[in-house]
Amino acid sequence: MAARPISHAEKGQMPDLRPIGLFDSGVGGLTILKKLATLLPHENFVYLGDTARLPYGSKSPETIVKYLEQNLDFLERHQVKSAVVACNSASTVVVDQRIKARAFPVFDVILPGSEAAVRASESGRIGIIGTRATVRADSYQRAILKLNPMAKVFSMACPLLVPLVEEGWEDDPLTNLVIYRYISPLLKENIDTLVLGCTHYPALKTSIAKVVGPHVQLIDSSQSIAEILLREGESMIEPTPRPPSAAKSELDLTPQKISISITDKSEAFVEVARRLLYPLIVSSFEQVDL
Amino acid sequence: MAARPISHAEKGQMPDLRPIGLFDSGVGGLTILKKLATLLPHENFVYLGDTARLPYGSKSPETIVKYLEQNLDFLERHQVKSAVVACNSASTVVVDQRIKARAFPVFDVILPGSEAAVRASESGRIGIIGTRATVRADSYQRAILKLNPMAKVFSMACPLLVPLVEEGWEDDPLTNLVIYRYISPLLKENIDTLVLGCTHYPALKTSIAKVVGPHVQLIDSSQSIAEILLREGESMIEPTPRPPSAAKSELDLTPQKISISITDKSEAFVEVARRLLYPLIVSSFEQVDL
Repeated sequence: MAARPISHAEKGQMPDLRPIGLFDSGVGGLTILKKLATLLPHENFVYLGDTARLPYGSKSPETIVKYLEQNLDFLERHQVKSAVVACNSASTVVVDQRIKARAFPVFDVILPGSEAAVRASESGRIGIIGTRATVRADSYQRAILKLNPMAKVFSMACPLLVPLVEEGWEDDPLTNLVIYRYISPLLKENIDTLVLGCTHYPALKTSIAKVVGPHVQLIDSSQSIAEILLREGESMIEPTPRPPSAAKSELDLTPQKISISITDKSEAFVEVARRLLYPLIVSSFEQVDL
Repeated sequence: MAARPISHAEKGQMPDLRPIGLFDSGVGGLTILKKLATLLPHENFVYLGDTARLPYGSKSPETIVKYLEQNLDFLERHQVKSAVVACNSASTVVVDQRIKARAFPVFDVILPGSEAAVRASESGRIGIIGTRATVRADSYQRAILKLNPMAKVFSMACPLLVPLVEEGWEDDPLTNLVIYRYISPLLKENIDTLVLGCTHYPALKTSIAKVVGPHVQLIDSSQSIAEILLREGESMIEPTPRPPSAAKSELDLTPQKISISITDKSEAFVEVARRLLYPLIVSSFEQVDL
């Protein structure tokens, strides 16, 4: 049973006001930012969208490691207390321990998704969809087999799904056809659980659910990472959901700060970010050079 | 009437052995490399594929300018005698004269494609398809209107076509559906000419021809750039197609050198490059950091 998180005020501690850092190559990780910022209203967030070099999904592990170190350097300069690699392609190199140790913990999205899949699957037959880089790295397969050595994992790279989301064709017969083409080989393997192994895919959840039918559970990695952070990072990131009836403390008067930095100027990104994060308010947008 | 190009040997000059440089964000520009290397068998070529930062099509003009200057610096270090920006998205910033002057001429692909379209169109109703960056930059429209102020230009960004080519679904009913969705608004405007404004699109020529029907002419920018270079760059790049009956000169014994550099390690790129360039032989592949 999960204990109710204890707030700084209740503990009589000074709150750790350092922000939590997140990054992704683009807008995908905003789904995770929204979940965390909603669940942790007293926390501040710094989000880096590496839009100048997106997408990561088609790049080699060596290149992804280089970008990821630069992104973590950026978050370090912003004095984050923890960092979330809100991108599956980049998470694979974290799981493989290919990045150098930092003064703050670095969370990936592969392990939370794998744990949720193993919990959800009754037959142990689990499907994974993701970008080419994520599928090639095989990180989900290895994480799942570590948790359940009897599991059978079936993966499929779906490089067209991110551009379909970015085109805005989420609920479209054409998109359903593409999804069907990618997922039907997995359905032939009688999977009962399908991991949405890319932070863009939750936008296609309705279409994917139609294609897989009611007997396959979908694992949304943005949901899983929020749960894991709430559980594992409790002492670090201090989850303090505000009880509706509580008297306003001084802390409640400090508005939550959400700062977004992008490496390429993009009006489209700013619009999508505001829409995706609503009703959360973004305190600042800036363009940065890494 | 085009004059037959005159070779160095015929002119009694020493050949300029410096290579011709080309670059693109990925494999697209290889279609242009192949045409040039076939038409200019005595010339050496240096091709840069900026695979670590592909695609350019979704990046802002500021970021594309930065990448392009770095790519031209690279070609300058390789002492090229001329450079071809074998990418439509990057060509837009060349047309707009946003890059600094170099000691060698820099050719883009927009102007050759526009000239060919104006020559081909009888009604002056011309369609353009390309990436978001190319369509947003409006360079084709401006170049065409300069050549024919009475022309009507209709553009459509087609962000899914590059990933469809990279997925290998070139001749596929699903791809035809996507093409139909993108192109039907242009057909409603009664265009008689359609510019394939992205170096990937020639791979979809068969499908696009099916969708547009026999009354719309397709303009392939790789064909146009080769023609322009042969015409305009004659004194510089010395086109010397080998006459089949000619006696072998000493020059003929020097094999053509085609060097390819990529910014991200990618086995897939090397395979695709060998396949696309066949029967030309690539002398060297190397990975570089810009």
